[in-house]
Amino acid sequence: MSTPVIGVVRVLSTTDPDALQAHGRELQAALAVRTIDRCIPDQPHGVHDEPTHRTAAPKVAELAAELVRDGADAVMISCAADPGLAEARAVVDVPVIGAGSATAALAAALGTRVGVLGILDEPPEPYRLALGERIVGTVAPRGVARATELYTPEGAAGSLRASDDLVAAGADVIAFACTGLTSLGLAQQIRDRHGVVVVDPVLAAGHAVCAALGH
Amino acid sequence: MSTPVIGVVRVLSTTDPDALQAHGRELQAALAVRTIDRCIPDQPHGVHDEPTHRTAAPKVAELAAELVRDGADAVMISCAADPGLAEARAVVDVPVIGAGSATAALAAALGTRVGVLGILDEPPEPYRLALGERIVGTVAPRGVARATELYTPEGAAGSLRASDDLVAAGADVIAFACTGLTSLGLAQQIRDRHGVVVVDPVLAAGHAVCAALGH
Repeated sequence: MSTPVIGVVRVLSTTDPDALQAHGRELQAALAVRTIDRCIPDQPHGVHDEPTHRTAAPKVAELAAELVRDGADAVMISCAADPGLAEARAVVDVPVIGAGSATAALAAALGTRVGVLGILDEPPEPYRLALGERIVGTVAPRGVARATELYTPEGAAGSLRASDDLVAAGADVIAFACTGLTSLGLAQQIRDRHGVVVVDPVLAAGHAVCAALGH
Repeated sequence: MSTPVIGVVRVLSTTDPDALQAHGRELQAALAVRTIDRCIPDQPHGVHDEPTHRTAAPKVAELAAELVRDGADAVMISCAADPGLAEARAVVDVPVIGAGSATAALAAALGTRVGVLGILDEPPEPYRLALGERIVGTVAPRGVARATELYTPEGAAGSLRASDDLVAAGADVIAFACTGLTSLGLAQQIRDRHGVVVVDPVLAAGHAVCAALGH
């Protein structure tokens, strides 16, 4: 395989091509891959609770099948809650990775005390399953409850402050639990500030896909 | 960070520079990294049981410290049993990854039924810890009990046949449990033969390190 094509499923509905391709751009900057970036319909605030997760799952599976028909060698569900992961695997025969389980898995391999930084006060299910007792804390920036609310000056500053709390709780790894954080460039800021390992979900999922493809 | 430097700890003592650099070459071929490749002393058959694991651990930690002094931005322990992982983390302040826990973690993120292919009939501890009930079988090529025995025509052919047994047991992912398998080029052969996801330990660890460094 020369240059793998990753089908990127965005769970935040948008008609803005710049926003749509934000995660694909990160992947192409870091890895020798091409991406096809598409979003599920009718979820302008993404996946941020049980109802939006449930609604997203069949749409994710349908979009995964479409991406594979259009040439994707693998599919990445770019959401920390992995909506539709099992459903997508059931309908395509290429590797499918969820950003949440990829992040949690790599955090487990990279340290023993994991701080979860996302948009909720509870870790998403893939993090609970993979990390269990290794989670030393879960924090969300104050005033942020949906991914779209991260993109304000308060959201960005609050995310950085939230990392302080996790380090104070003893974290040797910080696992992002929202792919919206990727677009803030926050991971390197936290590495520089605290000297801890930071696992970004988009990058984690991209590396997992490349490992799966032997690339 | 421009080009990260990965310190590669080989647990198979060798004076042959070609053998020593085998895993570093794989990493540099797949990822935009440089490597420094060194081996622990006095273990010509590597780590293949409890006594050789125990003997290796302090040597791995000492070598990790040396690699960081000499410029490594991260350290990779290139053995599926992760000898000396905790010991190395205790003495350096850069990310340290074990090839075993990296492989097991990525296998867990990439599927639900994992076949373990290594040099023993039991999964190494990092695989048991990360995968538990997800392991559908563990096989070793017939007649192979040490990594050095993989590099015979029988070892290579036996490794491929062993993958047949794991797929027959229902594996949707095959996780290699010996970094010696990397050098056989076996992963792509199994992907082509069975259409399953194959996780190679050297590549898995390399991707995990890059994710940790934000690269």
